[in-house]
Amino acid sequence: MKSSSGHFNGRPWSESEFIARLRAVGNQSYHDKHPFHVLMNEGGLNRHQLQGWAANRFYYQTQIPIKDAVILANCPERDIRRVWIQRILDHDGSDRDIGGIEKWLRLGEATGLGRQEMLSHSRLLPGVRYAVDAYVNFCRRQPWVIAMASSLTELFAPDLMSKRIAAFRKHYPWVAAKGLRYFRGRLRQAPRDADFALRVTLEHCQSREMQERAVAALKFKCELLWAVLDAIHLAYVLSPSQPHEPSCQHDQAKPRQ
Amino acid sequence: MKSSSGHFNGRPWSESEFIARLRAVGNQSYHDKHPFHVLMNEGGLNRHQLQGWAANRFYYQTQIPIKDAVILANCPERDIRRVWIQRILDHDGSDRDIGGIEKWLRLGEATGLGRQEMLSHSRLLPGVRYAVDAYVNFCRRQPWVIAMASSLTELFAPDLMSKRIAAFRKHYPWVAAKGLRYFRGRLRQAPRDADFALRVTLEHCQSREMQERAVAALKFKCELLWAVLDAIHLAYVLSPSQPHEPSCQHDQAKPRQ
Repeated sequence: MKSSSGHFNGRPWSESEFIARLRAVGNQSYHDKHPFHVLMNEGGLNRHQLQGWAANRFYYQTQIPIKDAVILANCPERDIRRVWIQRILDHDGSDRDIGGIEKWLRLGEATGLGRQEMLSHSRLLPGVRYAVDAYVNFCRRQPWVIAMASSLTELFAPDLMSKRIAAFRKHYPWVAAKGLRYFRGRLRQAPRDADFALRVTLEHCQSREMQERAVAALKFKCELLWAVLDAIHLAYVLSPSQPHEPSCQHDQAKPRQ
Repeated sequence: MKSSSGHFNGRPWSESEFIARLRAVGNQSYHDKHPFHVLMNEGGLNRHQLQGWAANRFYYQTQIPIKDAVILANCPERDIRRVWIQRILDHDGSDRDIGGIEKWLRLGEATGLGRQEMLSHSRLLPGVRYAVDAYVNFCRRQPWVIAMASSLTELFAPDLMSKRIAAFRKHYPWVAAKGLRYFRGRLRQAPRDADFALRVTLEHCQSREMQERAVAALKFKCELLWAVLDAIHLAYVLSPSQPHEPSCQHDQAKPRQ
């Protein structure tokens, strides 16, 4: 809350109130409630729509290591960098793990997309690109602690992932189980990452101003994830004849009425 | 070479000529020939001067993972990021290795510096800070390939490191051998890192313009390393009564005449 002089003048929230306010953002705005995800979990998507989602969300995946490298570059604390770097290893892969980007490529392939098609981002919707780029730019320009706080959507991810795995098994059995490896990996990674990001946020956001900025960062991230799905929902569910639709839509798109 | 219209119009160099030009930069400008390093390897530094070098060079060490994260954030090639990230792990440390920054702290301690003294950068000379910051900014703003090319000073590092290890054993036996762990680590890391950076540079700098930019980047890096030693040499060897000298200098400084 800003005073008339433009300075934050509230007393710092207690740790439990701070956490409650962070959780409230997720409970209210996390994209698990987006109509596209609801439709997905109900089994209401056809192959083309699922492909559109996988292809577009792939752009988000490609930018995650960039985003985390940006945060790493802004973070002067070696002990924190040593933990945060695991996110890049998890996503780009390492000698021990093929990595999240590769796992997402395999998910896309399991839906019938071509690898090259994904890598070329030929189905990428402008609205998705803008939202994802806004995320990387936010993390580049904000203090590293606030950028880390924006990742706290991971607090809410495991629920979404486990529901999604169940929904895929039930409603989209044509997506081979090995395609779901990304989701399974996140069941383990997201809670570990969120725990650490929450600890950093609590420790480094002690003033009311920083606490409010952390809450706002999480809200920004929720809005961004929501906007990604808005663009996908509009293009693939509501108005499948958008000009940016690939030409193959008429063969495959069966929008739900 | 630029034409009158400002465009590079030379034919690309052959790979062997490109490599020869890169090597020529190092042969001419690498900081192994700097008077301070010559003095160091001859055994001409006293404890205070060696401490001044270790404390100032520590700032460079702290910025290396930042510099590499900046490059990572600018690099869209996952396969290259997967290799480059090893530099950050090597320097920040990981579960498997204490890391180069910690090794340098131990070197400093072996010269008699306090850990906190190093971490607070209380002896950091302005000229050293400016040069090191210029390096990080260069890597932030240049194309990632050119930033990677600037690291090719590592082609020349192993020679300097092995001479330094021998010189420390001979002339500075009061520096405990365990303090030299950083140098020993670099004997293995630098050639591996330089090999990869050279491969990237050769593969991605195919035009004459990019080749010339890579050579210029290496020259920039050599100048920067040289400038770091200039500042140290001026403060600790030539003019030990500079105002930025710590107050203990009168007890310890024995400048060589």
